[in-house]
Amino acid sequence: MDRDVYVVGVGMSKFDRFNGQKGRPYIPVIDLGVEAVEAAIQDAGIDRRRIEYAYCGMVFSGAMQGPGQLVLRDVGLLGIPIENVKNACASGTGAIHELYNDIRKGLYDIGLAFGMEKLSTIRGALPLGVGFDHEASMGMAMTGKYAMRARRHMYKYGTTIEQLAMVVVKSRENASKNPYAMFRDPVTVEDVLNSRMIADPLTLYQCCPNNDGAAAAILVSEDVAKEFDNPIKIEASVLISGSYPTKPSSGVGVETYTTLIKAVELAYKRAGITAKDIDFAEVHDAFSIGELLAMEASGLCKPGESGKLVEEGVTRIDGEIPINPSGGLLSCGHPLGATGVRQVVEAVWQLRGEAGKRQIKDPEIALTETLGGGVSGMDVAAAGVIILSNHVKW
Amino acid sequence: MDRDVYVVGVGMSKFDRFNGQKGRPYIPVIDLGVEAVEAAIQDAGIDRRRIEYAYCGMVFSGAMQGPGQLVLRDVGLLGIPIENVKNACASGTGAIHELYNDIRKGLYDIGLAFGMEKLSTIRGALPLGVGFDHEASMGMAMTGKYAMRARRHMYKYGTTIEQLAMVVVKSRENASKNPYAMFRDPVTVEDVLNSRMIADPLTLYQCCPNNDGAAAAILVSEDVAKEFDNPIKIEASVLISGSYPTKPSSGVGVETYTTLIKAVELAYKRAGITAKDIDFAEVHDAFSIGELLAMEASGLCKPGESGKLVEEGVTRIDGEIPINPSGGLLSCGHPLGATGVRQVVEAVWQLRGEAGKRQIKDPEIALTETLGGGVSGMDVAAAGVIILSNHVKW
Repeated sequence: MDRDVYVVGVGMSKFDRFNGQKGRPYIPVIDLGVEAVEAAIQDAGIDRRRIEYAYCGMVFSGAMQGPGQLVLRDVGLLGIPIENVKNACASGTGAIHELYNDIRKGLYDIGLAFGMEKLSTIRGALPLGVGFDHEASMGMAMTGKYAMRARRHMYKYGTTIEQLAMVVVKSRENASKNPYAMFRDPVTVEDVLNSRMIADPLTLYQCCPNNDGAAAAILVSEDVAKEFDNPIKIEASVLISGSYPTKPSSGVGVETYTTLIKAVELAYKRAGITAKDIDFAEVHDAFSIGELLAMEASGLCKPGESGKLVEEGVTRIDGEIPINPSGGLLSCGHPLGATGVRQVVEAVWQLRGEAGKRQIKDPEIALTETLGGGVSGMDVAAAGVIILSNHVKW
Repeated sequence: MDRDVYVVGVGMSKFDRFNGQKGRPYIPVIDLGVEAVEAAIQDAGIDRRRIEYAYCGMVFSGAMQGPGQLVLRDVGLLGIPIENVKNACASGTGAIHELYNDIRKGLYDIGLAFGMEKLSTIRGALPLGVGFDHEASMGMAMTGKYAMRARRHMYKYGTTIEQLAMVVVKSRENASKNPYAMFRDPVTVEDVLNSRMIADPLTLYQCCPNNDGAAAAILVSEDVAKEFDNPIKIEASVLISGSYPTKPSSGVGVETYTTLIKAVELAYKRAGITAKDIDFAEVHDAFSIGELLAMEASGLCKPGESGKLVEEGVTRIDGEIPINPSGGLLSCGHPLGATGVRQVVEAVWQLRGEAGKRQIKDPEIALTETLGGGVSGMDVAAAGVIILSNHVKW
């Protein structure tokens, strides 16, 4: 029989470019990981010797050594089992997903999931694949793919470039209230549209920054959760790999997140809820258009409606369905392995009522989703969806 | 309640340097992975659509894309969940370990674990860690560490360089009967000792070659295993992270595999056996001395006795306790992510009686072990131990 799983401690480092340049300190990625893990242990108030298993999400993790072990070493946890997991941008979500599955199925009671990444010292464009990638070699980097998605959405639904820009305006507004975010200064629609063109129609401000950061969460079984003050329940976690390309005759194009739709439907089913029950979401806004497509794929609005909802303020913190109250990837930045865990950290803070100036009013159910990869003939390499709630029975 | 887990299909690619040089074909790593996975599916005779979950072990897996997904794409399995796992040289063992845990605990019934790696096209020495590594920067690469282990073993127990060389002679003898191995020509003790010195006392032939390869295994729950002809039972699987350095005053030095001893003891306990029950072992002979230390850590002989046992032929295929009947890492080569899975493939073939000219006589219980990493203040980053048997109850 499945056991309920709860998050009892979360923590994160600030997200920024810790590369020793422009007045910023140089911080090794392992130190960022240690900071996040220590914060999560502190937050839970748990004796760390009770932690039985760990997963570390990281993409650029060097070659030979397991990166997660170096964090375990520095926090006094060496000896427990750890897996370093990697699923492109969804690596952190994967770390939580595996831990959740293990605890749900009774493999152990207390585990640690963390993610970390340091992109600020990687020179040049991020390489996309392993081996030769036909799409990437012809220019189909992520920016190009998302630009096609944006153009298609504008063509099909009349979404405007101003609506795309408003995603960023809202993101910065939220981030201005998030001390962990990288970009915290407000911007206007004009600022966004006047920033440098990256891949038409996506301007610089509509692309999330590559940066550094780490986030961590401690998950426990229901019996253990009862010891804690503010446990947050994981209602469902789903991770699936990508979909094969759809036939042109199907009418399904790049503007549809086929794999995310599958993952979200599974997650709603497992949690026993529908999209209507979601009070807010942290979604994969790697680009402005990404937030719109994720809203639609998650059933938070009908296909094509997302742009209007953003324009109407529905997705603001005080709106009907707040999206990315943290500022999302667009303002926090996107240190790959850390992002999925950071989303869960934000969800936990919001559901506990501890999100400070960006607190959403009395939320009960949160959705987080990340998409990993998305070249080499796949729409994405991985989609991860987690549903959390503060519905505690005891 | 835990469920028994069985291996019902295994497969691998040849292990070699597929880099397009010296008459060898150029083969992308994804194609090696596909070859291994297809072979495992074929071997099981299973409808691939029944596979529910996958783990891929790989170390040098490129940057953004999940490498395992590219294999799933090409074998028609995209859509199922997959985690790409990484634990240095124990990455493949980790893939099997996670799959085993999931099936044991009832998460699903049928899963795929595979490992793959392409080292032949990586230029220069393999970088060791992530971020700055104080030990590596002072020359403490794996060769140096194993050389220290060898010197210490020779000093403490009187192990001779000839005995170290005999590990390689036996390895090549076994590999000459293994069509998947890279180095299949017999060598003499003189050949081994006269090969180029790498890190005194370890000569070139005592260091495993970096090469390319892939291996795969299909694991199922007991109920499903009953459909198959020759299921091999996983009696135990243990994966732990490293140990903190021991105090000099403890008398425990580099010649003792502290972490492996812990992992093996746990594995014996979970399997309900002792070292005496092991009929043969595939161990982590990344260097000649490694095989000796693994024998001792696994309780297959007393500390200090391993060299003599090799000299007496006890570890040969027709000896009392055959070690590395496949030829091990020393002759098969060590494509990091593939190695731990390859060991299980060999164990399954031996336990089924399908190992051809290198078949051990009527083995019943096999031990496989891999060690991952081992710098940055840790003796190893990870130790993985798997015990398999052909004891089938129905």
